[in-house]
Order: sequence, then C-alpha cells, then structure tokens
Amino acid sequence: MTPDEFRVAGHDLIEWIADYLERVEDLPVLSQVEPGEVRAQLPPAPPEQGEAFEAILADLDRVIVPGLTHWQSPNFFAYFPANASPPSILGELLSAGLGVQGMLWASSPACTELETLMLDWMVDALGLPDRFRSGGAGGGVIQDSASSATLCAVLAARDRARRGGAGLADLRAYASEHAHSSLAKAIRIAGLQDDQLRLVATDGEHALRPDELDRAIEADREAGLVPFLVLATVGTTSSTAIDPVSAVAACIGPDVWLHVDSAFAGVAAVCEELRSVNDGLDQADSYVVNVHKWLLTNFDASLLYVADAQPLIAALGILPEYLRNAATDSGEVIDYRDWQVPLGRRFRALKLWFVLRSYGLEGLRAHIRRHVGLAHELAGWITEHPDFEVVGPVPLSLVCFRHTGGDEANQAIMDRVNRSGAVYLTHTRLDDQVVLRLAIGARTTERRHVEAAWTAITDAAPRG
Amino acid sequence: MTPDEFRVAGHDLIEWIADYLERVEDLPVLSQVEPGEVRAQLPPAPPEQGEAFEAILADLDRVIVPGLTHWQSPNFFAYFPANASPPSILGELLSAGLGVQGMLWASSPACTELETLMLDWMVDALGLPDRFRSGGAGGGVIQDSASSATLCAVLAARDRARRGGAGLADLRAYASEHAHSSLAKAIRIAGLQDDQLRLVATDGEHALRPDELDRAIEADREAGLVPFLVLATVGTTSSTAIDPVSAVAACIGPDVWLHVDSAFAGVAAVCEELRSVNDGLDQADSYVVNVHKWLLTNFDASLLYVADAQPLIAALGILPEYLRNAATDSGEVIDYRDWQVPLGRRFRALKLWFVLRSYGLEGLRAHIRRHVGLAHELAGWITEHPDFEVVGPVPLSLVCFRHTGGDEANQAIMDRVNRSGAVYLTHTRLDDQVVLRLAIGARTTERRHVEAAWTAITDAAPRG
Repeated sequence: MTPDEFRVAGHDLIEWIADYLERVEDLPVLSQVEPGEVRAQLPPAPPEQGEAFEAILADLDRVIVPGLTHWQSPNFFAYFPANASPPSILGELLSAGLGVQGMLWASSPACTELETLMLDWMVDALGLPDRFRSGGAGGGVIQDSASSATLCAVLAARDRARRGGAGLADLRAYASEHAHSSLAKAIRIAGLQDDQLRLVATDGEHALRPDELDRAIEADREAGLVPFLVLATVGTTSSTAIDPVSAVAACIGPDVWLHVDSAFAGVAAVCEELRSVNDGLDQADSYVVNVHKWLLTNFDASLLYVADAQPLIAALGILPEYLRNAATDSGEVIDYRDWQVPLGRRFRALKLWFVLRSYGLEGLRAHIRRHVGLAHELAGWITEHPDFEVVGPVPLSLVCFRHTGGDEANQAIMDRVNRSGAVYLTHTRLDDQVVLRLAIGARTTERRHVEAAWTAITDAAPRG
Repeated sequence: MTPDEFRVAGHDLIEWIADYLERVEDLPVLSQVEPGEVRAQLPPAPPEQGEAFEAILADLDRVIVPGLTHWQSPNFFAYFPANASPPSILGELLSAGLGVQGMLWASSPACTELETLMLDWMVDALGLPDRFRSGGAGGGVIQDSASSATLCAVLAARDRARRGGAGLADLRAYASEHAHSSLAKAIRIAGLQDDQLRLVATDGEHALRPDELDRAIEADREAGLVPFLVLATVGTTSSTAIDPVSAVAACIGPDVWLHVDSAFAGVAAVCEELRSVNDGLDQADSYVVNVHKWLLTNFDASLLYVADAQPLIAALGILPEYLRNAATDSGEVIDYRDWQVPLGRRFRALKLWFVLRSYGLEGLRAHIRRHVGLAHELAGWITEHPDFEVVGPVPLSLVCFRHTGGDEANQAIMDRVNRSGAVYLTHTRLDDQVVLRLAIGARTTERRHVEAAWTAITDAAPRG
C-alpha cells in the first residue's frame, strides 16, 4: 500500500465508519449467526499475493458485520456499555499511525508525559483525592482493563505483605460476594488458592457488610493468618451496588491494602451530584476506573491510581541491561513498564486527550446525566407495571428488574427480546433469582430507544 | 463531534498520518526533549468546554511530535522494530470504529472467529506444527504482548504441576541467562520467588547449553524439587541467539512444560530459507511470536499458541453468572477471555487480516528478506573495518558489534550518534562487555539508511 493508496483507503474507511455509526441503530444489535458461520465464509489459508483494499472492505460488509454484536448501537443495553466516541476513535487511529512504544520515558517521552498529565486531569475531572496525583508518592497509569489493574493491586499488596514476613499460604483477601470475577482470577494468578479469597456477605442492597468484613478479618487474625487486601466495589457488575468504602477502611489497619474497584461507576463523579461515588477514596491504596466503559473512550483505557507507587514498582520492576538509559538512571522520569504486567505499551493517552478536549467536562457531564435520567425514568415505568418489579436501588444508569413470573419467565423474556435483534440485554442472579439487567450507556441512546426496549420487554412477557 | 464533523476530522487525520509517514525520515529519530518539557507546554487541567479538532491537531504538531521517538522512522535501529504498516493502521482504526468486545464468542462472534482463523492462517504462513491449529486440542490466541503470553504459559504450567501434587515452593523453571526479562517478571507474578528461576549458562554464541540444562534439572530432581517449565528462546533480545529447541526438548520429560519464546524471530519463518527458526516446535507446549515487531502489524498483536488449551483454560477460566450464555454452555465456541489475563478484548484480528491480505505472503517474504540482506551487508562492512568487530552470529536482521576501544568508547559512540537525531540504536552486554545493537526492521528502511547509519557510527568513533 503506497502512501497515496493509504490516503484513498483511509478516506474510504473513515466514510465507512461514519456510515456505520449512523446505520448501526438499524442493524440487529445481537448477532444472529451460528457458531462457525463467519469463518466458513472466508478462505481457509492466507493469500500468496496482496489484494486491493476494496476487496477487504467488501468482505467486511459481507462477512464481518453480520457476525458482530453491535456495542455501539443505541439499542445495546447488555453488560456495561463500552461506548467509543468519534474523538476516541481518532485518538486510537493516531496512536496506531504514530506507532511509538511507551515502555520507558526514553522510548518516546511524549507518550509517558501526556499519560501522566491525563491521569492528573482525571483527578480534577472526577474530584479524586490529591494522593493520586503525580509529583508525590502516588500517581496513575493507563492499563488495558480493570482486570489487569486489580491484578497489579493484588501483586503490590501481596509482595508488601511478603516483605513484611508473611508466608504466601497465610495471606487472605476479602471482598463482597458481588466483587468482579477478575479479583478471583487475580488471586489465582498471584499464586494463591481460591479459598484464600474470603467472600463477605452483603446487605439487602447487595453491598458489602462492614461488620461481616470485620468479623472475617478478626477470625483470620486470631487463626494466625494475614489479611493483606480488601477490595471494595463501587458499582458492582451485577447491580451497581456500592460498598461503603469509608466504613470498610475503618475496619482495616494500614497493613491491609485497600483497593477500590469503581471500574464502571467511577466516571459518574464528573457530575458533582454523583460525586458520592468517591466517598472513602482518600483512604484507598489503589483505585481503578475505566474510561472505556461509560466515558466515551474506546476500549482499552482503564485508569489505575495508587497512593504510593513504590509497592507497585517493587512488585513489577525489572531492569535488564538492554533497557537501561540515562533518563531511567536519573530517577527523574516515570517508566510505566514498571507499573504494569506487559513491557510494551501503546500511546493510549491520546484517545483520552481527544475525548477530554472534544467534549470538555460540560459535555461529559451531559452524557452521564442523560443516562442516569433515562434509567430513573425506566425504573418508574417498571414500578408502575403490575407484572414487573425493580430489584434494588438504581444509583446510576443500570436498572435491575424482573417479571414476577419467576426465573423461567425472565429467561424467556430475555431470550425472546435478544433473538429479535431489536434490543440486547443480559441477566444476573441476585438473592438466587434471575434478574434482568438493562444498562443504559451507549453514546447515542435516547429516550425513544429506552421506550422501545421497554415495549419489547413487556411485549415479550407472558400474558397475565 | 457530529457525524459530519467526524468525517472532516477523520479525513484531516488520515492526511496528517500519511504526511507523517512520509516526513518521519527527516525528523530527529530520538526525541531531543528533556524530562517535563512536553507536559509543561500543555494546560494543567482539563477544559470545561469542548474544543475544535483543529486545535488538538495544532497541539499535536507543536507539542507531541517533538516529544516522540519515531519508531516508524527508517533510521530507527534500536531495541527491536515495531513496524506499523498502513494496512495495520487501518485495521486498528476499524477495530476502534466498530468498538466491539471479544471476551466471549457471544459478545461478538466475528471477533472470535476471525481471530481463530487468523491464527490458523499464521500456522500456514509460518509453517508451524499442526498441533497449534484450532479444531483439535490446541490453538492460538492474540495477546497484547509476549510478556503476557509468557505469563499465561507460566500459569498454565504452574497449575498443571500443582494439580500433579507439587508445592509452589518446590517448583523450578529454567531458561538461558539471555531469556527475556518478562520470564523473571512472570515467575514473580505467579507467586514464585526469584531464585525459583534457574538461569542456565550459554555457549559461545549465547545460546542455551542443553548439557547445562540437563545438569540443572537433574540436580533439582535429586534435591526433591519439581522442574515444571523450560523456556527456550529463538532469537534472544540481546543478540538473537537461538536456543537449540530440539535438544532442549530431548532433555526434559512430558511433565515439564516447554515454552518457546520466538517473539521477535518467529515471523522470519514466512521465508522458507529461514524456517529453521521453527526447529523443535513440534515438541513445544506453547509458543509465542509477535506480529507487532517485524511483521508490519502495529502493536499490540502477540500470538500465543498452545498444543493443548485445557491447562491454559484451567488456569484462567472463571465463569460468573453475568457472563453465562447459551453458546458458552454448548461448548461449541471459544471464549478467549479464558485464554488471557484481562476479561475485555479488542478486535485485534482485523489488523492482522488487513496485513495478510494487503501484502500477501509474497509481500511479507520480500519485507523480511530485505532486512536480513541488509544486516548481512552491514556485518560485512563492520568486519572490514579495522576498529570494529561483529559480535556473534547474525542469523537474522540484528547486528551486534563493537568498537575495539572498550566499553567507554562504545557507550560514547552510541550517545553521540543518538544525540544527533540522525540514527537511533541501543546497547546490551555480552560476555560482560558493552555491545552495540543495530536492529534493522523498520518498514521503510533501505540500503541508504543503513549506509548512513554506518557512516554516522564510524564518524563518531575515536580516531585511531
């Protein structure tokens, strides 16, 4: 592909994407293909000779698009959103076009410095505690996912406890039974057994009970075990339940690492009236929030903040000879490779820079407020319906609800609605019952889409 | 940013990137900024109101570009290449534009199926053993980096050994003293102590000595310890030394996991005459090769293959209720979230699809052959020079060499050349001496760039 061919192909693809974003609303949001159907339409082996870009673009329409579940559709209400905005798409394009590596400050200084600045901008944007700002002991880093960020917190906490003399087998971690599965995965990756993670009971709103946490920690301490990590979730995946972070912090000592997982909910703090999602963060050792879920920045961009970077760097820092350089030796720069599992890293800060500058804080607040408002409207409609009920509080933009006809009825409603291609929502289990989750958060979701989804759901319900 | 504004901004950015790729040759390849210089030119806090795209693009030229070290410059000879080709840039753009998640087959089927197909295409392209093809026990997955891929191999091997009854503290891993630092990092992440990794002595060409490996394993077995993993490197980071994989395989039993790290070198196998880099792979349990280094696919795209996926899935699989779905329950599909550390995943297969189709295997072979040829030419010039010597063999496109004037002379040459901005190369230590590394691999590097680099190096050398 010559430079001129790149220009032509690039312009074609920009138009294709712009068209896609305009027409995605009309595509079946949940892909209707069967396993193997996509692959069967493509050649089994790579071509010997190069092909023209038009041929690839044609296969994109013919084969790939029907095999997609459209996360950018305004009718996507499943899981949590992963909204990619036009500025963030361009930020990712630029990152690919520059093709620099940010493993070391020296390997491309702007990649590191813009990242540090963006993390500090987000401290301002979300009203986070100053301990997470760069320039002191703490700071932030962009990771690929909250899973990886939580793993890093677990590793930092684990190694701090081991340096304090604890044996690996004696370590115990704690979280609510609704903590994200990535914590259990991180515990396992870190070499601990599954039962070294204590799942603490929750209250009627599915938030961690500090009294139960306190009891579990005390019992373990009395048994000679070493509590080393507590994870508090602000906005659980199942129901956006909010663990009481301050109360959690109050029942653990400074020897226990407090990690706050606010992967989905944390960005709500751009709005002053939702800033209670930050309660207790001034006592957290680490904090993760994804801008790639609800804040218009395309996946992947998960922000990990630490109050003190040293335990993180102690856990992850390794300096082979071929990476030594004068800037690293000077101690004046951040080498983000020591803040994450992989060595290599893309220039992810660009897309966050593009988003923050294109929307401004005003634009981001309007985006969040619209979804929260729609969720409350929907919750009102559900409450008014004789056969449906809202399950738990609706603190943000996820509405959990169910038909009163039982698990099978709810599963049937979901399957029917999803198969139609008009709406996509997912489920969870709360209090051992199937519960439907409708997560509002796509960039272009308006009131009419939520209305249509609610109509589709009620139409799919068994007749009373 | 409205759809029409996105079109305009997108076209502008495509032109900007095309211009950048044409002019990058003339920019100082190593950024000349001081620590803090980039950040100081940008506002300390995010804007309240949104800004126009032109304002961002202006700052890109004013602030960001001078702070970049240009990995796409034909004068970039540092580390290993990370060549991003025009088709791969467009593939990344499309991935961002679609904004789908590939954590589950069900979360966007085409994302999983195209990835599996691309991994199979690469089995064909590189002549890999059939055990790495999908459809049987084994298969492949795209990860962000070889660091993460090697971590996954370590975790799969660790947990297999533990299921076999071994205690964590008794496990021992083995690799040459020139294995990539990501192995030591993975060992540490996995909960093992640093001394549970045995670094085995190498031969005169810096390749692992099987007799030394055999000795180390036997000694550990006699001491009641449990060898669980051997990492063989095909193309070490320092010098592209090639461990004898078949001989390594011959001195370990089936209870020891053999992981082959061919992160840089493996793609050379697109050329028949370089296919010896695959020797012994038919006995490997896992294999990692990066298409994001030398194969024109922008970072990140590291391919991990396993002969048997079950130990990997056993180590990394967790299925919370909110991710359950009919396709997963059927067992007919691959859910790649169980093949990696993070949960979320981008549609990375698109960029590899774009590269393989745009270049064809012919184009990829020509690309690799050009660099290997240039490396041999350069090695010839060095050999002819009275004050320089080639260090070790040049199996591929990395040339290690040094001035005969000692460590300080070599360090001074490198610093002088890099400060000029005309060339960027890095160093390593071999046999306890500073050695300069000149890695040829940028997409647009031609003979004249290598000639100019060699002239710059000899000009910077102390006069004899």
